[in-house]
Amino acid sequence: MRIGVVAPSGRFVRDSAQRVAAIAAAAFPDVELVFHPQCFREDNHFAGTDAERLAAFVETANDPAFAAIWFARGGYGACRIAEDAVAALGAAARDKAYLGYSDSGCLLAALYKAGFPHVAHGPLVHDVAREGGAAPVSRALAWLAERSPDSLEPGLERGTAYAAFNLTVLGLLTGTALEPDLGGHVLLVEDVSEHAYRTDRALFHITSQPQLRRLAGIRLGRVTDIPENDPDFGVTSEGIARYWCERSGIPYLGRADIGHDVDNKVVPFGVF
Amino acid sequence: MRIGVVAPSGRFVRDSAQRVAAIAAAAFPDVELVFHPQCFREDNHFAGTDAERLAAFVETANDPAFAAIWFARGGYGACRIAEDAVAALGAAARDKAYLGYSDSGCLLAALYKAGFPHVAHGPLVHDVAREGGAAPVSRALAWLAERSPDSLEPGLERGTAYAAFNLTVLGLLTGTALEPDLGGHVLLVEDVSEHAYRTDRALFHITSQPQLRRLAGIRLGRVTDIPENDPDFGVTSEGIARYWCERSGIPYLGRADIGHDVDNKVVPFGVF
Repeated sequence: MRIGVVAPSGRFVRDSAQRVAAIAAAAFPDVELVFHPQCFREDNHFAGTDAERLAAFVETANDPAFAAIWFARGGYGACRIAEDAVAALGAAARDKAYLGYSDSGCLLAALYKAGFPHVAHGPLVHDVAREGGAAPVSRALAWLAERSPDSLEPGLERGTAYAAFNLTVLGLLTGTALEPDLGGHVLLVEDVSEHAYRTDRALFHITSQPQLRRLAGIRLGRVTDIPENDPDFGVTSEGIARYWCERSGIPYLGRADIGHDVDNKVVPFGVF
Repeated sequence: MRIGVVAPSGRFVRDSAQRVAAIAAAAFPDVELVFHPQCFREDNHFAGTDAERLAAFVETANDPAFAAIWFARGGYGACRIAEDAVAALGAAARDKAYLGYSDSGCLLAALYKAGFPHVAHGPLVHDVAREGGAAPVSRALAWLAERSPDSLEPGLERGTAYAAFNLTVLGLLTGTALEPDLGGHVLLVEDVSEHAYRTDRALFHITSQPQLRRLAGIRLGRVTDIPENDPDFGVTSEGIARYWCERSGIPYLGRADIGHDVDNKVVPFGVF
């Protein structure tokens, strides 16, 4: 099967592509991993201009030769192209699986909103650059190629609807044309490199949206690389999540095995 | 006249209170500046607990002896108390002027949403700590005590409705119970200490809200202390604002004389 890699957000790294191609060749001989040339384009902050990133995604998603699209890297930029990108997709795009997290959550959101059935939050190609980065890459490929249950977040329950996002990315989506209806869903969120007060602010924002107060619950993934708060914020990430869940009436359902790290598990969107 | 100072957000500084009291005593002999004891409370990140900050604001706003409320300092925290605070206000609170910016924009928003007629974006007490900080303090006092036209943002035009916010704070308000209807308003925004990609993201978020696409226009204040973007973002703050205005169909109306600095001018909310 052919899996296409595109980079809708920040600049990608050629070395990561080579390392992931080697892992795929060794462990997934039936997978042909195709890096769209756009992955290696550079336009200041981004992996190519908006037009280049949009075209690469649309071209690959609409090509029936590909069974799945795997996002190369997060960073920032998918929100700039997501609405136009999903509007340009045809029937062949709908059959595919889409996998990524962090900034590519903008595309996951728009795809899920458009009713695409195989959208999942999970490792990016560039996670290979982390220490121990072979594990998330193998986990992602096992889900993309085989829908391996071992790749899944262990707390998913049959019959429940899920979605997963980076907390900051979900905040930027709210109220925009990219935001899917998450009523009745269990939402898994994670974040990285945000001060505690920003996590508090983001959870205020999310849990204060009337449409998100219809969530079935929130589970908190890992919140990592938190810059020092001066003075100390005095509450842990989980304390912050519990506080805003209680205040907004959204059930807090405990921790989730997702995050900006090598242990990040796959969370398919929709009813499990 | 009596002006009450409360601190709805981050910790305040006693030295700033003393310096501002001295400026007020020398230049505004008719003003009695009353610092609520809550200004000097500390609860980790905040100027006292949520309950203390809420009570101080409500008590001062509801006291007919005060003609105005001046916010001590920004930081973070007003979103945690703003909805409950404004719900607790009575008739005596409605006659008052309210002045602040940055994080206290959460209260300005909720007050303006509730129909309070004298809400304004402008210097905080703690701006005295900036180099040249006597100027914004005098500008604020002149507006609070005398509604001095010299304090106003110079581009305001009679008959036009205005609102002004820190861009990041406006982002956190969108979709929440604090967000006022800004349809038909000219919106002035400024920001500080945000990476260029975050400003781009915030402007995507703001200009993608259907209710904010009814703005009469956006004017961009100063965007300062921008951390280095690696790689370079390649577009200036004004370029970013122009881009999102053009894309969303909101008129871009040029620069505004507001910002996190000593030149920050006063912008009363509503029809000028």
